Amino acid sequence: MSTPSGPGRAALQHAGMRASNLALVLGQVADAGPLSRAQVAARTGLTKSSVSGLVADLVEAGLVTESAARGSGPAPGSASGGAGSTPTRDRGRPASSLHLDRQGAAGLGLEVNVDYLAAVVCDLGGAPRYRHVVTRDNRGPGAGEVARVLDELAALARAAEAAAAEQDLALAGIGIAVPGGVTDDRLVTAPNLHWTDLDLTPGLGALPVTPLGVRLENEADLAALGELWFGGQAPADFVQVSGEIGIGGGIVVGGRLFRGAHGRAGELGHVVLDPDGPACSCGGRGCLERLAGQDAIIAQAGVTDRDELLGRCRDGDETSVVAVRSAGRRLGVALATVTNLLDPDAVVLGGLFAELAPWLRPGVEESLGRHLAAPLRVLTSRLGADAAVRGAAGSVVRRIIADPAGYLALSAAGGAA
Amino acid sequence: MSTPSGPGRAALQHAGMRASNLALVLGQVADAGPLSRAQVAARTGLTKSSVSGLVADLVEAGLVTESAARGSGPAPGSASGGAGSTPTRDRGRPASSLHLDRQGAAGLGLEVNVDYLAAVVCDLGGAPRYRHVVTRDNRGPGAGEVARVLDELAALARAAEAAAAEQDLALAGIGIAVPGGVTDDRLVTAPNLHWTDLDLTPGLGALPVTPLGVRLENEADLAALGELWFGGQAPADFVQVSGEIGIGGGIVVGGRLFRGAHGRAGELGHVVLDPDGPACSCGGRGCLERLAGQDAIIAQAGVTDRDELLGRCRDGDETSVVAVRSAGRRLGVALATVTNLLDPDAVVLGGLFAELAPWLRPGVEESLGRHLAAPLRVLTSRLGADAAVRGAAGSVVRRIIADPAGYLALSAAGGAA
Repeated sequence: MSTPSGPGRAALQHAGMRASNLALVLGQVADAGPLSRAQVAARTGLTKSSVSGLVADLVEAGLVTESAARGSGPAPGSASGGAGSTPTRDRGRPASSLHLDRQGAAGLGLEVNVDYLAAVVCDLGGAPRYRHVVTRDNRGPGAGEVARVLDELAALARAAEAAAAEQDLALAGIGIAVPGGVTDDRLVTAPNLHWTDLDLTPGLGALPVTPLGVRLENEADLAALGELWFGGQAPADFVQVSGEIGIGGGIVVGGRLFRGAHGRAGELGHVVLDPDGPACSCGGRGCLERLAGQDAIIAQAGVTDRDELLGRCRDGDETSVVAVRSAGRRLGVALATVTNLLDPDAVVLGGLFAELAPWLRPGVEESLGRHLAAPLRVLTSRLGADAAVRGAAGSVVRRIIADPAGYLALSAAGGAA
Repeated sequence: MSTPSGPGRAALQHAGMRASNLALVLGQVADAGPLSRAQVAARTGLTKSSVSGLVADLVEAGLVTESAARGSGPAPGSASGGAGSTPTRDRGRPASSLHLDRQGAAGLGLEVNVDYLAAVVCDLGGAPRYRHVVTRDNRGPGAGEVARVLDELAALARAAEAAAAEQDLALAGIGIAVPGGVTDDRLVTAPNLHWTDLDLTPGLGALPVTPLGVRLENEADLAALGELWFGGQAPADFVQVSGEIGIGGGIVVGGRLFRGAHGRAGELGHVVLDPDGPACSCGGRGCLERLAGQDAIIAQAGVTDRDELLGRCRDGDETSVVAVRSAGRRLGVALATVTNLLDPDAVVLGGLFAELAPWLRPGVEESLGRHLAAPLRVLTSRLGADAAVRGAAGSVVRRIIADPAGYLALSAAGGAA
């Protein structure tokens, strides 16, 4: 009978410690690289010889690479090493410099939205290396229509895989953004797609096989993560509100996604603005989405589509500008409620709302001024409609950086289910 | 030059480890007591001799006490101790049983609300041992009026201290619930009291001196903690909404208070229900509080005060019942928005809303049904208006249990500032 004692237990403990040290070293290189081995040792508290062994493993795994450093002075902070520290022995010698390997492991982000499909490949540093967006009406409850959407998504994924391979990038995993709720990782309810309790497992079978496999997430949550990681402006506590056909929201608290008790938090599109207002696809009525979403603005502006709306706003067309400003006032009322409930440090306007910002923001500010005593910082996303798919790709490489040992084990095993 | 190495560092590490082990042992006794020393050892992974030393310190400090156990069998779980475990040596011997000391350290909770002052003393187990509520209109922006409120609060506190002493309870700290926002621990803005940026430091000087000192908190946040710890029904993720003159809210996520980026989260009373509605004391307009708070219900029911309202509802008076049901519908709309944003496991109705529950809930359920696809669990607090002051007292003893070493150090030093 095997018990967790003796050498077996020690080996297990050693493996656990090695896994957490690999993550510690890779995390430092990701957050603060390029770094020398001595700098990694100083930052992690590990010995230089431990760091060398861990770095060798990370280099062999294709996660870390090294080049001659631009400077070769002592590590920053080594002067404050306390009494007994001696001059750095590396001084004057060219130190090698560790950074994330931009070839090798990559993340594939896919997005199914109401009126487009998108694919982005990012490298281990999160930089986008390939992007492909196909405009397409994906709405429809029929099994045939859903199958066609997923077929096209799989074709997009295979094209992305081929393009990545040409850049010496190998897909480590796939994140898929969907405009709705995800339960049990595969069951999707996306009212604006007319998808209800739809099991995507069979339809996703044609996707490339990767070590980390496929994960589905709400697109607004991924847009918030995209904004946090790649947007270059969001603080650690913010709320993302993305206007598209629907209005999605993502709540970030202390740099992490706030998901709620059942993973359904952040549904900003369903803040109730008018209890007696029009029926909404969520089953409620008078929701923000019905009163300030793309369809509502387009109808009020009397235009046919998003492009015409943007063009008319740029041309100063009175009816369109008034329609957008009016949507901005409604959005501002909802954001006042959000602020009173969640007290974020900032709100980020994304998607269509970012594109419409010049005409939307005056209405937003007007309502915030009427309803809040303290000002709220309102930022405009610079990622536009790409926030969610970049968040989807980024969440794959974030998983590798958080647990490189787990990723390596799955790679060796030939991929996750 | 002193550096953190050698015996000094080892001693510091030892003190830190002892502090965390004291908290570990006390936490087990608090959560799962009564326990034998062997049970504590099994649950914490500490050796029996370590546990004996730590328990001796906790007993001497008056935080833990022991009595003959009702049963004297082996510790639960000791049968699953893995291969090589031997029969418990204690079997057949009467084991002593450790539990929190219900004499000694106690928490004083105070509450300043719009129309009453309250004091509760609880023992280390959180059980209320003394309660005193004084009905009083505390509103008024003048310095003289504020001083009179705080004088009366101090008198209440000294009476509570004397009553506690008669029960062999010594106040370990004081928590004060206020119906507003607290910044820098003493600066209070409570619109319904007409207090704006009011520094309570001088006025609180007459309170009893205690080891842990005085802490101010928002009353709705403390009511949520009171409900979590003492209400006997709330899950780990819930939203508390307390109706009084104002409407307060507290958000609990994973058993902890969610405070937001600036400590102002959970202002359910200021969910915007009608963008063009009446002006609110918060500076906004159309807030839930103005449309479904005590004053709004009383005005719509045409009664003079809360007691008359409750009496008339019990008597089946049509106008009062309609007014409360209408407030319930408005509250339900706000709770639909709260649910879409925060996705809690339940909502707890507290304060006046708990008292009005039989007539309020039909309206709440009606709106939830209209606006939410999935049902929301709505609970009615059994603590009534005591939730906040019990949370205030409980938060004092929770601090002792979380960090007994810190409490003992402050006790020895003669009290915090």
